[in-house]
Amino acid sequence: MKKIKNNKKEEEQIEEQEKSETQFYTYDKAFKFENGASIEELTIAYTTAGNLNVYKDNAILICHAFTGDADVLTWWSNFVGKNKAIDTNKYFVICSNVLGGCSGTTGPSSKKPNSNLYYGTDFPTFTIKDIVKVQKILVDYLGIKKLYCVVGGSMGGMQALQWTATYPSMMEKAIIIASSMCHSPMQIAFNEIARQAITEDNEWYGGKYYGMSSPDRGLALARMLGHITYMSEEYMRKKFGRKRKESLKYFTPSFEVENYLHYNGEKFTARFDANSFLYLTKAMDFFDVKDDIKKIKNKKNISLNNVLVISFISDWLYPSTQSVEIVGAYQHSNINTEFCEIESNYGHDAFLIKNAEQTKYIKKFLNN
Amino acid sequence: MKKIKNNKKEEEQIEEQEKSETQFYTYDKAFKFENGASIEELTIAYTTAGNLNVYKDNAILICHAFTGDADVLTWWSNFVGKNKAIDTNKYFVICSNVLGGCSGTTGPSSKKPNSNLYYGTDFPTFTIKDIVKVQKILVDYLGIKKLYCVVGGSMGGMQALQWTATYPSMMEKAIIIASSMCHSPMQIAFNEIARQAITEDNEWYGGKYYGMSSPDRGLALARMLGHITYMSEEYMRKKFGRKRKESLKYFTPSFEVENYLHYNGEKFTARFDANSFLYLTKAMDFFDVKDDIKKIKNKKNISLNNVLVISFISDWLYPSTQSVEIVGAYQHSNINTEFCEIESNYGHDAFLIKNAEQTKYIKKFLNN
Repeated sequence: MKKIKNNKKEEEQIEEQEKSETQFYTYDKAFKFENGASIEELTIAYTTAGNLNVYKDNAILICHAFTGDADVLTWWSNFVGKNKAIDTNKYFVICSNVLGGCSGTTGPSSKKPNSNLYYGTDFPTFTIKDIVKVQKILVDYLGIKKLYCVVGGSMGGMQALQWTATYPSMMEKAIIIASSMCHSPMQIAFNEIARQAITEDNEWYGGKYYGMSSPDRGLALARMLGHITYMSEEYMRKKFGRKRKESLKYFTPSFEVENYLHYNGEKFTARFDANSFLYLTKAMDFFDVKDDIKKIKNKKNISLNNVLVISFISDWLYPSTQSVEIVGAYQHSNINTEFCEIESNYGHDAFLIKNAEQTKYIKKFLNN
Repeated sequence: MKKIKNNKKEEEQIEEQEKSETQFYTYDKAFKFENGASIEELTIAYTTAGNLNVYKDNAILICHAFTGDADVLTWWSNFVGKNKAIDTNKYFVICSNVLGGCSGTTGPSSKKPNSNLYYGTDFPTFTIKDIVKVQKILVDYLGIKKLYCVVGGSMGGMQALQWTATYPSMMEKAIIIASSMCHSPMQIAFNEIARQAITEDNEWYGGKYYGMSSPDRGLALARMLGHITYMSEEYMRKKFGRKRKESLKYFTPSFEVENYLHYNGEKFTARFDANSFLYLTKAMDFFDVKDDIKKIKNKKNISLNNVLVISFISDWLYPSTQSVEIVGAYQHSNINTEFCEIESNYGHDAFLIKNAEQTKYIKKFLNN
């Protein structure tokens, strides 16, 4: 990885931005997965920002999307920080790397306890429920009995959905952005092609590539495909059009859009693990929380009382229809639910990009 | 390849269907490409159906889509044949495999003249213009001075578009279905990922794989991706939903939709050449006929007088907006142009599937 040189001004800007060091909590009991398997050691990487008040009732858990990490002040700096949509002057923000991720929390790229061997594909297959169970362990450890809100976009939204279904007595509000109660066949299909790109890479070695070369070509290809689905057609037209690269060879990228995908595909391999990609996409594909949401109404002592659902008009990967279905399911369970479809031409990526509408809705929802 | 066993009834049905033997014409001069390169031998695989009348004014050239071949009575049996939309009782239908294809016409998988070596990536890079130039050679050989109509869907539509721009004095009508005057960045992006899947396959060997094993895994992956883009989300929901496969292993397909893609990906490798895939997708990406269409009005002795443009409401790969642009360009050149957007939930594949609306519009347009 090349280090990008910042000029003086950019460095200063970066220094001004709020920062949180990643912390690690190691759970000292066996962690049992939904499928019955267990692991003896579980480390959770997390960050916090803002201060927990004396009543411990101002904590907001933010769940990251597919390839995110615990460092929410960086990846969601447009919405989290002092005076932002999720205001760290008021709220105590928690964000942890997901189970099975590759940014500090135990996953396939971790070593087995007391061993020099990596889990690889020996890591138990896990679900969004398992991911949420790990977050619950962290929240317990931090001494928080009730979360003020659980927030997430995309795969983060799935976790927020699962929180409301599993722990509706441990939270008051939820914000679910650009997400789905279960993947459509098209979403599954895109994931399967990405997985296939990885597992067909000769350097995947059945998932046991650690310490050797890694399936970077397959992983880059998987990421390139992801990037198409994260953008809208309109946005791609505006950003790339049919702009050409200067030097033309036939079986290399000829257009700027190809360049962009290649650049981002390659960059991705420096920060993400191929096995985490496989496990997390499978967890998303198997996720189906519809029935669980509808059963919330049968639960007792529910503190969950308000849900905000946000979608984006140009998001064709997680289309608004899926958000409308979420709203319907909560209404079935008599949970107050607000829905906003935001105009944006950024496609699925919109939930990460600065947006006054999204800021306004989240702020209002949290402050009510 | 396994042979599929037909029962008696199916065999009879197949026998009833009109058939055309593929014929071969070898052009005995050097063929010069748009980029200046040339090849000494050019074979064109083609079929004809129906009879050329004495005035030789009832010929319709049908241009096949990306992975099609000359056998139009098979791949477009829903629209071509006796009493069908393109009625072989009335019209003399011609269809040839495209230049660079792999079903009889010279391409990367052909041997060089007087040699046992295959072209592979030594084959000259070619354009849609080159493809059309080869078709013109065939039409001349068949003794036809003027085509009644040139018809094509998808990449076939690009050829029909190019015909109207290059030879507007050699045709009367054109039908352009589910196509585009130039690829959008999203269309280019999907093609590039498919190409990348092939060229990253260790068995592609820089395109010199003939006589060895071939890059089937990459080619299958490329085709799987294609299949997603050929279907609409709604159609996938109806066809697959979240139906599971019976036996569940984690890093193999778990849902029916994944199965479908794998099955079709693998099947495709038996009939298509990886290098043809690369060359043809590049030809499509570089295709840009906008200015040429607008310049038709400056040409003299034009016999082209009517164009029919068809798109499908659920086609997100070649969306209706691209067809509307085609209509605008022809109107700019004062060519009578009709446009129909057909309701169908089949996505891009719709143009191949039985459809009373499409039949009606084509029939009416040809008979007027």
